[in-house]
Amino acid sequence: MAVVVQKYGGSSVATLEKIKAVASKISKRREKGDKVVVVVSAMGDTTDSLINMANSLNTNPDKRELDMLISTGEQVSISLMSMALQNEGCESVSLTGMQAGIQTKGFHSKARIEDIDLTNLKNHLSEDKVVVVAGFQGVNNNGDITTLGRGGSDTTAVALAAKLDCDCEIYTDVDGIYTVDPRLFPTARKLKSICYEEMLEMASLGAGVMETRSVEIAQKYGVKVYVALNTGEWEGTYIKESDNTMESKAITGLSLSDKDLMVTIDNVRYDIQNISYIFNELASKDINIDMISQTAPAGGHVSLSFTAPKTDEKIILDILENVEKKIGNINVEIEKDITKLSVVGIGMRSQSGVAAKVFDILARNNIQFKQVTTSEIRISYTIDTKDRQRALEAVANEFNL
Amino acid sequence: MAVVVQKYGGSSVATLEKIKAVASKISKRREKGDKVVVVVSAMGDTTDSLINMANSLNTNPDKRELDMLISTGEQVSISLMSMALQNEGCESVSLTGMQAGIQTKGFHSKARIEDIDLTNLKNHLSEDKVVVVAGFQGVNNNGDITTLGRGGSDTTAVALAAKLDCDCEIYTDVDGIYTVDPRLFPTARKLKSICYEEMLEMASLGAGVMETRSVEIAQKYGVKVYVALNTGEWEGTYIKESDNTMESKAITGLSLSDKDLMVTIDNVRYDIQNISYIFNELASKDINIDMISQTAPAGGHVSLSFTAPKTDEKIILDILENVEKKIGNINVEIEKDITKLSVVGIGMRSQSGVAAKVFDILARNNIQFKQVTTSEIRISYTIDTKDRQRALEAVANEFNL
Repeated sequence: MAVVVQKYGGSSVATLEKIKAVASKISKRREKGDKVVVVVSAMGDTTDSLINMANSLNTNPDKRELDMLISTGEQVSISLMSMALQNEGCESVSLTGMQAGIQTKGFHSKARIEDIDLTNLKNHLSEDKVVVVAGFQGVNNNGDITTLGRGGSDTTAVALAAKLDCDCEIYTDVDGIYTVDPRLFPTARKLKSICYEEMLEMASLGAGVMETRSVEIAQKYGVKVYVALNTGEWEGTYIKESDNTMESKAITGLSLSDKDLMVTIDNVRYDIQNISYIFNELASKDINIDMISQTAPAGGHVSLSFTAPKTDEKIILDILENVEKKIGNINVEIEKDITKLSVVGIGMRSQSGVAAKVFDILARNNIQFKQVTTSEIRISYTIDTKDRQRALEAVANEFNL
Repeated sequence: MAVVVQKYGGSSVATLEKIKAVASKISKRREKGDKVVVVVSAMGDTTDSLINMANSLNTNPDKRELDMLISTGEQVSISLMSMALQNEGCESVSLTGMQAGIQTKGFHSKARIEDIDLTNLKNHLSEDKVVVVAGFQGVNNNGDITTLGRGGSDTTAVALAAKLDCDCEIYTDVDGIYTVDPRLFPTARKLKSICYEEMLEMASLGAGVMETRSVEIAQKYGVKVYVALNTGEWEGTYIKESDNTMESKAITGLSLSDKDLMVTIDNVRYDIQNISYIFNELASKDINIDMISQTAPAGGHVSLSFTAPKTDEKIILDILENVEKKIGNINVEIEKDITKLSVVGIGMRSQSGVAAKVFDILARNNIQFKQVTTSEIRISYTIDTKDRQRALEAVANEFNL
């Protein structure tokens, strides 16, 4: 008798009818003899509605109180799911994050799971109940309710699976992981499996299926994750350790992101102290930077470029204004109409020439790129957003994605 | 610097605008130097909406899961109230029943407060924060969320005041306690104060301002309770120990209840075992019986009458059908168009003749009564519902209520 953790996102439990359908599916799985732990998110756009209420009372609501408020969304889902399961004749019990022993540390609204005390959950499992756990939430050392931030329910599910040493199934409104976003490239193929490293690169680049954090936990504890459509139609995709069949292909997937802007700082005096100072100031404000590139020094000065989230534009400009006071005259330019295009594949480790092939494809299609950075399993380009569809189709077709 | 517990019911926090208004009022009270503990209910008809959702998934939802579900209503209110207070510049923190240390025992959906661990609450008070506590809920020995049943937020407030040894203010949509329900008798006077015993009789007879349980706790621990309109306009009513000024009046108030029906059982063989058996069977199903009366035995048989909630009609008939199988042929009659009229006053203890005066009033007005029962401070009559308004006006006018 295997234990399995299943996670259903907000769109899978958006209405009472959908909750019934999910309960019926879980109940059938239970009848096969598996012990099931279910992690659910808040129904549909409940969380957004709650945040809107908060904002209309206080333009800058306290994060502790906001966590207290929005954690009710999952609490509603777990109790309703448990009632729906009981209506199917399936014994079940709902647990809040606190009751499920999910201990967190760190800031409210973006807490991290420190440990999970499984005592209560295992007691209920041993009584043959389906245990329905509130995703996205936990409790800190003060006994305050915390939330885990974006993708928090995935994190709850994978962390529970890690602690229970079992597989994790993520049911969502996409039916698996594709070589390329099928909305952009309709002939993209669904992957049967993808390895953790590739998924991490895809996730951090905006593939949008799972948040990076939960993939990191899965990798760290070797949790096999299955991503599939919540209705159970069609085969999904496994995220797991890499194996030989994966390595035979150079490139597993291609991803695009329009969420970043590109910052270029000219006329920076070439001095390691200066450059370190700039990036430390940005880090101290939690600006998430990617794709740093630096020109060779000329005339004692260099030019730096990096990408960062578009939402951080104002704070970046404020930081660089202060930086200028300290390190002297610099020239800051921001380009917003850029797209990051990345090819990802664990096979790049053993197959050379991937970068050269992509350069060639871009050149033949007359697509300029502003930056290029490479890692062991990923090559990323910054291109003009107007070229994104042409670039995507050219690369996807040439690599047969 | 005094500590005070204030309770705001669901109608006082039904909208975001109302929450803002209450927060502003609390904030002004705080500025006077008082330490304030606020107990809030769920917003408006939130609880009913949640119960409707539950019922549409499961016709007989598990009470543990129902408590898990409906307790979210108060959790939403406390966090929003705390944010609204912070927006007024008033430091505050919200606590769920569990976080406020409210330990309960007994059944889900009608748990009782066993004790309150004030450690967490007192820590926050000592940091000069307004502490906003979720009414109606607690936690049992298993760590499960429980709810306290009808009037549960009043119970939370009074129990907290008892434990904190301070006064309790109940803000609601009525502006105090009247000698007679002013909707039925517009010239009724508002009482400046009423003693616990009188309030208990009024509450149990449907005066509808506070539930009996919370008045019982106030009496047991000597908590002075102030009931007033949530806007703070007009003076409210104190519920407290009796004092001399109260005893000078024979009757403090008059109350009516249409919630009960009257059951008459004829042809009961006169045997204490038989009669005890009937009432024990009713008690075993939690039927709340009042106004028991018995005729003198005639021909070895007696006739029994009592009142019970109209909602229990079917179960009473089922019980009596089974009783008949055991004790032989009886005749059961149920009258639904009855009203209980009660006069209540601590002064009856020392002033005789109140019952005689009421009998006289009813006789002069040609109002028949079916039953009469008396206690030390209350006399209750069962009358036809068609006579209720005439009886009320006659008695209220004669006693100058």
